[in-house]
Amino acid sequence: MARTVGSSGPKTAEAIRAAGIRLIYEHGFEAMSLRQLAAEVGLQPGSLYKYFDTKQDLLFDIVREHLEDLLAKIADALDGIVDPVARLAAFAAFHLRYHMTLKSNVYIANMELRSLEPDNRAIIVAMRKRYEAILIDILREGQAAGALHAAEPRVAAFAILAMLTGICNWYRADGPMTQDELVTLHVDLVLGGVGAKRQAVHKAG
Amino acid sequence: MARTVGSSGPKTAEAIRAAGIRLIYEHGFEAMSLRQLAAEVGLQPGSLYKYFDTKQDLLFDIVREHLEDLLAKIADALDGIVDPVARLAAFAAFHLRYHMTLKSNVYIANMELRSLEPDNRAIIVAMRKRYEAILIDILREGQAAGALHAAEPRVAAFAILAMLTGICNWYRADGPMTQDELVTLHVDLVLGGVGAKRQAVHKAG
Repeated sequence: MARTVGSSGPKTAEAIRAAGIRLIYEHGFEAMSLRQLAAEVGLQPGSLYKYFDTKQDLLFDIVREHLEDLLAKIADALDGIVDPVARLAAFAAFHLRYHMTLKSNVYIANMELRSLEPDNRAIIVAMRKRYEAILIDILREGQAAGALHAAEPRVAAFAILAMLTGICNWYRADGPMTQDELVTLHVDLVLGGVGAKRQAVHKAG
Repeated sequence: MARTVGSSGPKTAEAIRAAGIRLIYEHGFEAMSLRQLAAEVGLQPGSLYKYFDTKQDLLFDIVREHLEDLLAKIADALDGIVDPVARLAAFAAFHLRYHMTLKSNVYIANMELRSLEPDNRAIIVAMRKRYEAILIDILREGQAAGALHAAEPRVAAFAILAMLTGICNWYRADGPMTQDELVTLHVDLVLGGVGAKRQAVHKAG
């Protein structure tokens, strides 16, 4: 039984994470049992503890890794872009593309905040705030430069994030619009919303 | 034990619904037990069945009633408004105000679609589509009249609804901005997003 550990340890850990994401997405965190999770990856329930100490740790790990990834990738996406309107367009395009591909992780990160224990929750909330602050700063800079209207950048940022994240609810890779078309449509909604003019900004990625 | 039924039947049913909403909001539908729900309203678990047949019926009832209410109230909010931009502003203002007050019902209606059985789910999805269609039609009329830009009204409607519903995630009645200020900010984002000019449209309610 213990043979799954050892050289295949990291692979097993990854399989457990993936199965955990799937089960939490389908049933909710509280309803997911460790027995169910173990069965999903072909382990005995007792063996799961070689990979994580508690169910709570697994949830925390899934949500934290999602946010670490998001924070690293947004930094890349904005790297080298100076103009606030161009940064806003790049932020919106990045957020949208990211949320078209990682739907269940995002869903869990948003929905199961309620299931995180207070200390874990505080860490995750702080990471979310770091991400939100990037958009708030862009709006603030744009407002200061007279390039857009965002008298309340914090609230505008929340509204924009909700709009862009909403794509998780209905996006299908085989839908009638391409990812590029959806990005253009949403970036136009965002820029128009704050009264900014779209510029010739194209960044690979 | 059966004394709670009788003249207080409707009151008990209402208490069960309210407790159900609270418990599903906190724990998720699958994780909520009927034993927990019964304890919350001071009934024996066996007595719950006088009010609803299954846990699934309770969820369906909560979500359906939310959507019936939403559909009735949006009809009222738009009644007598003809101009598409004014209708768009009225739709956005209504949706926002509604979602600032009924957060947990909305959360459940969105999150626990996954927990509805196929037949129930189909009914709810059809009701949601009727609501979405109201906004899609407004955008389509505005586009046809040259009053706004919404080349893909369906996708634009999804984006706008996600943005407005997002207020459930953070709105607090004791926050720094009033409901009116938040409505103005969001309506401006919506109208700006589709390139429509805000008009002197004020409707009571």
